[in-house]
Amino acid sequence: MPRADEGLAFLLRYENVAWYEDGKVRILDRRCYPHPIKFVTCNTSEEVANAMRDMIVQSAGPYLACGMGIVLAAYEAKDMPYDKAMEHIRYAQDLIVNARPTTAKRIKIITDSCVAAAEEAFAAGEKDAIQATFDRIIALTDNRYNKIGEVAKHLVSKFPDEGTVMTQCYAETILGFMCKEIKAQGKKIKFVCPETRPYFQGARLTASVLHDMGFDVTVITDNMPGWTMHEKKVDVFTCAADAITMDGVVINKVGTFQIALAAKYWGIPFYVTGTPDKCHPFAKDVKIEERDPNLVLEALGTRTAVEGVNGFYPAFDKTPPELVTGFVTDKGIYDGDKLWDYYNGDDGTGEYELIV
Amino acid sequence: MPRADEGLAFLLRYENVAWYEDGKVRILDRRCYPHPIKFVTCNTSEEVANAMRDMIVQSAGPYLACGMGIVLAAYEAKDMPYDKAMEHIRYAQDLIVNARPTTAKRIKIITDSCVAAAEEAFAAGEKDAIQATFDRIIALTDNRYNKIGEVAKHLVSKFPDEGTVMTQCYAETILGFMCKEIKAQGKKIKFVCPETRPYFQGARLTASVLHDMGFDVTVITDNMPGWTMHEKKVDVFTCAADAITMDGVVINKVGTFQIALAAKYWGIPFYVTGTPDKCHPFAKDVKIEERDPNLVLEALGTRTAVEGVNGFYPAFDKTPPELVTGFVTDKGIYDGDKLWDYYNGDDGTGEYELIV
Repeated sequence: MPRADEGLAFLLRYENVAWYEDGKVRILDRRCYPHPIKFVTCNTSEEVANAMRDMIVQSAGPYLACGMGIVLAAYEAKDMPYDKAMEHIRYAQDLIVNARPTTAKRIKIITDSCVAAAEEAFAAGEKDAIQATFDRIIALTDNRYNKIGEVAKHLVSKFPDEGTVMTQCYAETILGFMCKEIKAQGKKIKFVCPETRPYFQGARLTASVLHDMGFDVTVITDNMPGWTMHEKKVDVFTCAADAITMDGVVINKVGTFQIALAAKYWGIPFYVTGTPDKCHPFAKDVKIEERDPNLVLEALGTRTAVEGVNGFYPAFDKTPPELVTGFVTDKGIYDGDKLWDYYNGDDGTGEYELIV
Repeated sequence: MPRADEGLAFLLRYENVAWYEDGKVRILDRRCYPHPIKFVTCNTSEEVANAMRDMIVQSAGPYLACGMGIVLAAYEAKDMPYDKAMEHIRYAQDLIVNARPTTAKRIKIITDSCVAAAEEAFAAGEKDAIQATFDRIIALTDNRYNKIGEVAKHLVSKFPDEGTVMTQCYAETILGFMCKEIKAQGKKIKFVCPETRPYFQGARLTASVLHDMGFDVTVITDNMPGWTMHEKKVDVFTCAADAITMDGVVINKVGTFQIALAAKYWGIPFYVTGTPDKCHPFAKDVKIEERDPNLVLEALGTRTAVEGVNGFYPAFDKTPPELVTGFVTDKGIYDGDKLWDYYNGDDGTGEYELIV
């Protein structure tokens, strides 16, 4: 059984995030991680889509889970004739892509690649289409991890040698690589983590794993970042993004916008990690996902407001480019009005790698 | 037994807030109100000071409770010779005044008046010094309530005929008078209430009592105000203040500052209710009270972060005058650089009334 005190080392292993084996996909249940660590078993590709929609898999998890869902669809289709098999796999892809609106386009690109792998194998009459699909999602994820390592290098270069960094929500993969890089660069960094209601990802995940990895961590509630960054002399505010639109807007966990406003007020740099997202050229076209309003009317299962009171739960918000000091990518750090430069030197196919 | 669904009508009755009777002071326990409604009985004036320090009494409650504590001190001193009696009462006042640093100076002024009433009665050899002290705190509170009624009139005049108002934390007395005034002016107002961690005053108190009073209320978590004021088309942001310094800075529940920043960003007016506080001429001299850091590491008694993680709990923050549209007082609405005008026309004694 994995131990919680392994922290991010635990989470950086693919098999602990989402893993296909013997006709099933095992997914870490993020709704309660790290207390307790438990897994949900999906017996069908449709159940993988449901797990994504129901937030069983969160953070960077969906970018691996989606591919594992396609592997499972390939398994389900293994005895079907080619046409039927591809029809089934594409149907499964459709469910998986549409599980959550905000990341739908990125999930589409990843799963397109996995579906293509399955299709090549089925078309060639290969016995092991399942393995081919599995290999594709692993290769995509390896590539993504390599690039995240590069992002972490650029980000940590902006940290002081000794100082305090404020986070937002939980940015699993980049957080893990960032910690490795802080140690590699020999910097002494303390963290301040807003708790991130209603799920408490900041308190429950970010703070816990940073502590497990040996860092000094202070948790605050979500009404405190603006004041605390002044009181605790925060040097840098950083977060990842669910999407960075090509016009320089950060789509990320609700609260990012108001922390960024406060950082601007105090003159504290704000660095966002991620890749500008060609799927989202304009922020105005991004629909902000709303979740079950009852979740904001309770805390850890206990109701806070009386019956009859409404809740409102926008999952993300939009932070405009004038509040962002730099967009940190694997290729370097860009201003919000220079994001298209990231794609200079592309091979012209329009393909690009996904980073979260 | 009082009913929770009486809402603010319940809380506007002094006897439900803090009440002296037969050598005891009964105080509403705000740590759990309104679920359940229960009272703490203070058998000594020292216990009243403790109840203030321990947040059993919150919001405007301390401004009544402090006087009831002096009444109890007068009761304790009733059989002592004059010098001993006054020594005891002044000792009790000292405990009460220093129970909480942020409001210490205001509590001093109120209790000075109550102590003076006790002193006059004891000096005159009056049998009923207790009654004289009691009458003084009631008179002070009546006067405060009358002025708050005036504040509410000015505030509600700034609301649209039909629209949405965002609150912050729980501003009991002004909230009650504001609701009365909205109805008197025939306006149709919806409310958005941030939940106010770690105590959930917004969700637990403000939203509940507004709902009880027949208003449409939506609760959000504290990371959402900045985005929600745009999404829900908030027309006005308003809050009371623990102190308004003479240089125009709002000392109020932590989070006020970052909501005010967002309101400024979106061009939404922000009105603060209260009286400029001569006790606090300069914001730079106001010490922000810190509370038990463990409270931010839990929610309704359930731990959120692992052991070893630190908490930080600044109770208030400071919002600068450039973020405030107007300071709403009983005498009208002032700009942040005109707060001394509030005291024009004073009778020259330097005395003034307290409003919360």
